[in-house]
Amino acid sequence: MARFAIGVDLGGTNLRVAAVDTAGTLLETITTNTAVARGRDSVIDEMCDAIEELRARHGKKQDAIAGIGIGVPGIIDMERGMLRESPNLPGWHDFPVREAIEQRLRTHVVLENDANAAAFGEMWMGAGQGSGSGDLCMVTLGTGVGGGLVLNGKVHHGMTGMAGELGHTTVYPDGHQCKCGNRGCLEEYASATAVKRMALEAVGEGRAPELGRAMGANTEITAQQVYQHWLRGDAAAKGIFDQVGTALGIALAAWINALNLPMYVVGGGVAGAWEAFAPAMMREIAARSFVFKATNDGDARRRTIITRAVLGGEAGLRGSARLAMLQGETTS
Amino acid sequence: MARFAIGVDLGGTNLRVAAVDTAGTLLETITTNTAVARGRDSVIDEMCDAIEELRARHGKKQDAIAGIGIGVPGIIDMERGMLRESPNLPGWHDFPVREAIEQRLRTHVVLENDANAAAFGEMWMGAGQGSGSGDLCMVTLGTGVGGGLVLNGKVHHGMTGMAGELGHTTVYPDGHQCKCGNRGCLEEYASATAVKRMALEAVGEGRAPELGRAMGANTEITAQQVYQHWLRGDAAAKGIFDQVGTALGIALAAWINALNLPMYVVGGGVAGAWEAFAPAMMREIAARSFVFKATNDGDARRRTIITRAVLGGEAGLRGSARLAMLQGETTS
Repeated sequence: MARFAIGVDLGGTNLRVAAVDTAGTLLETITTNTAVARGRDSVIDEMCDAIEELRARHGKKQDAIAGIGIGVPGIIDMERGMLRESPNLPGWHDFPVREAIEQRLRTHVVLENDANAAAFGEMWMGAGQGSGSGDLCMVTLGTGVGGGLVLNGKVHHGMTGMAGELGHTTVYPDGHQCKCGNRGCLEEYASATAVKRMALEAVGEGRAPELGRAMGANTEITAQQVYQHWLRGDAAAKGIFDQVGTALGIALAAWINALNLPMYVVGGGVAGAWEAFAPAMMREIAARSFVFKATNDGDARRRTIITRAVLGGEAGLRGSARLAMLQGETTS
Repeated sequence: MARFAIGVDLGGTNLRVAAVDTAGTLLETITTNTAVARGRDSVIDEMCDAIEELRARHGKKQDAIAGIGIGVPGIIDMERGMLRESPNLPGWHDFPVREAIEQRLRTHVVLENDANAAAFGEMWMGAGQGSGSGDLCMVTLGTGVGGGLVLNGKVHHGMTGMAGELGHTTVYPDGHQCKCGNRGCLEEYASATAVKRMALEAVGEGRAPELGRAMGANTEITAQQVYQHWLRGDAAAKGIFDQVGTALGIALAAWINALNLPMYVVGGGVAGAWEAFAPAMMREIAARSFVFKATNDGDARRRTIITRAVLGGEAGLRGSARLAMLQGETTS
């Protein structure tokens, strides 16, 4: 019987490949720099080398490995196993990723969007574990804002595998220009990139003397640094995370009203600043979602839960491995 | 083998009860005034009388009837068969509707939210018929704005049966106050009530001389009258339906990005003014949804379709009857 699967999380900066057993334990993880600059073929080589290494080391018996799951950033055409759009992986567009990897490894692989894989991982071993439900919505606040929907225990892919693009929910119709072409997307207010932009704007307009001093001669600041200032009580940093929470709460309220799921999970790097943005987020949800109010007034077993992700960067690894395990079950 | 089911559509002004055969044909429909003012018990009596009449007339053989489905406005606690909120049915709140009807009829019934039933009806015999997909999102523009999601061929109820409350999607965070407590809900811009309000505002501010003349000494105007003015090229009416379409497009773009369904159907009375609001709606969707753009650039078989409902007021009757048929199949 299969004992483990291999999960891959291909990020803009790191490539991680792990052997994950059926209980969800990471048996071994290989981490390398993605080296996107060296090009697509080089990244795929590196990925396949790491997969083969883990397969050789943990899969001595022929039937020990349940499958291989690969989470990649970007919009995946599930039918064709291609990336339709992937701003962080130049040169991968409309390239048959799944086929190329399968040829290299001589086996079937599962290709999945990274945010979907993370949602599935949180469902299995994270915030959703033991919830007794097969439904979860996860929004990932990273460089961009991604999302994943798990419905009835399965990733909801939609017609062409593009479902879960929660970061491009319009929050402010006349708001900041997003690179997707829309204005006022959630991503423009709740991503790490947005936190940086709002900090630079505040400094430029003379509204953030402390952040300005921290920047010094640099013109760069990280979301993490803004959070450090929030921890010290800086008013400008507080204003920025209020904006993050407000935008996220407006969007979450709409999803709660539309989907009435039992759990909404917030993950990604910016979720580390949970205490800084959660009050504004919860205030907006309470004001804007009557489904939230209706579910949280009564029966405690049927509350709408809004919570932090608990697996951090390991959600995607576990989720992609789990997807491979389940696919293995249905095809074997 | 079961030959037909009974579908009920309980609206704020009409009660309709129909015998629907397994091919989707309405065999017979009984329509009465809801007479909500006469009170809950009187409405239930009337409904059960009509059901029994149809049952006697079309179900001579014991096994001819597949079941009874009842669509009601309001939020239904599916587990308990109660209405949690139903602004249009005063006195029905937290009353065990399903149980009361089942005792009267001495048989099992299916209780469903009216917008969900309409979505299910459109899926079966309307806009979604023959689409080859089990997924559809329907938004209903009536006195309020409701919605229903059909996923994998089933109504998506969510945790407590409250899913599909699409009318309370925040479109403008600082917008018009909604009676749900939120500001800027879609319902405040795309319902018949909203069309009336916007018309009265325009007249009050002197921006709509034609509409003002039509009102005369009245202080009332209907959405239908505003549409009549749109047909005559009135600029104020055009501005109002532009607002309807803009708000609807902003909300649809978000659902398309989140759910990536093959079809979104717009129904309800205001959908009769499709040509008046559709251009603004489609403009917003094109500008705001990259999932729409990505699906509609390429393969014609996988386009995101935005379309009018085709069954009109019969969608709910057919949908609730169909739900009863399917429930009958699984329980018998």
